[in-house]
Amino acid sequence: MRTGVLWGVGVGPGDPDLITRGAARAIAGARVVAYPTLAGGSSFARAIAADLIADGAREIAIDVPMSRERAPAQAAYDDGAARIAAALDEGEDVVCLCEGDPFFYGSFMYLHARLKARFEIRVIPGVTSVSAASARVARPLAARNERVTILPGPLDEAELATRIAEAEAVVVMKLGRHMAKVRGVIERLHLTERAIYVERATLPEERIHPLSEAPEVAPYFSMILIAKGGDPWL
Amino acid sequence: MRTGVLWGVGVGPGDPDLITRGAARAIAGARVVAYPTLAGGSSFARAIAADLIADGAREIAIDVPMSRERAPAQAAYDDGAARIAAALDEGEDVVCLCEGDPFFYGSFMYLHARLKARFEIRVIPGVTSVSAASARVARPLAARNERVTILPGPLDEAELATRIAEAEAVVVMKLGRHMAKVRGVIERLHLTERAIYVERATLPEERIHPLSEAPEVAPYFSMILIAKGGDPWL
Repeated sequence: MRTGVLWGVGVGPGDPDLITRGAARAIAGARVVAYPTLAGGSSFARAIAADLIADGAREIAIDVPMSRERAPAQAAYDDGAARIAAALDEGEDVVCLCEGDPFFYGSFMYLHARLKARFEIRVIPGVTSVSAASARVARPLAARNERVTILPGPLDEAELATRIAEAEAVVVMKLGRHMAKVRGVIERLHLTERAIYVERATLPEERIHPLSEAPEVAPYFSMILIAKGGDPWL
Repeated sequence: MRTGVLWGVGVGPGDPDLITRGAARAIAGARVVAYPTLAGGSSFARAIAADLIADGAREIAIDVPMSRERAPAQAAYDDGAARIAAALDEGEDVVCLCEGDPFFYGSFMYLHARLKARFEIRVIPGVTSVSAASARVARPLAARNERVTILPGPLDEAELATRIAEAEAVVVMKLGRHMAKVRGVIERLHLTERAIYVERATLPEERIHPLSEAPEVAPYFSMILIAKGGDPWL
């Protein structure tokens, strides 16, 4: 019997209109869809693609616990990968819904790492939250021969300071509980006036503020853009 | 009379299936479309979206001359912006087709800079060639807390060497006539075995090679991905 193919499908940053035509077709045709959920809550990726999922499709929710330790999340991906593998072994294709782009800081990599040796995996790239944020603030992210540096907020303070100092265009992703630290680094580099805060770009609850007016507490799906040269953001 | 809105619409990296649903609707509904052409040749952006352009739509081709000097291209954008402005002043919306994502190294910024003071501009983000390349080579671009550094090939040799040396995940864009220089830098850093060459990702003429087997001459729409840590590319 034919083994199924695992599809990693990017659903874009939030607005369902930013799902690609190819991703929409793959999702609509899927008999099995998989997606992460966070700590028993709902799935952001599923919510973005909800209008496309066929009635009667089998759904594999991979519940990732909220923890700073790696082991509980890794156990959740082990379990999710096993359930996906079972469907693939039955000959079913599985469409895994991924926020943004599957291979750009996506949790899909944890499934990919576990399943790539045994199954065919294909990826449909998606619009990243970085592209969405620069569209929404209406300013080019990268122009001409500018370098772009993308930094995860969890990096430690000294590393963030060094990397931001030597960069040109900067994106700091995954702010969450790292917001105060990141803001402090940017202030000490005297770059606050060149920085803009973007939360949940393209969603109805989107928020965009100069960093000086950004909230104290940021969700995971937020970022700061810093433009050292050229026009300011607003 | 109502003034028109200028839409900067990302059409993605090449495969028409990677056009978003929102972009497809905007293009299909456009009575005026604009796009760059290169030195009297055809338009890559128009080719990607060709199946969507309505019969009878007015087309504004902005012919960008091939030149290492800035002035001829800038004159072309001046002229293109003037023709777009004339349509907007007539009350027509104009949909400008942009390869990849409009604000990620896109020529749309030249129109944006010329027209933003006078007209409303909205951007629909697109899938970048970077996301497309990592999907096609089937390896995450950025994992966990990795930093991502995106470098344009035209940077000078010393700067490229410094920036690649201090980076983690690296993308070198816009190779073109800079291919030999970029390859030499990567060799001297002993990173050739960690580098992969991707040309025209997602198009029928796509080529993917380990850097050691990459062609001597690269087109503009090509890139090198370097992964210093984790799995090799192939």
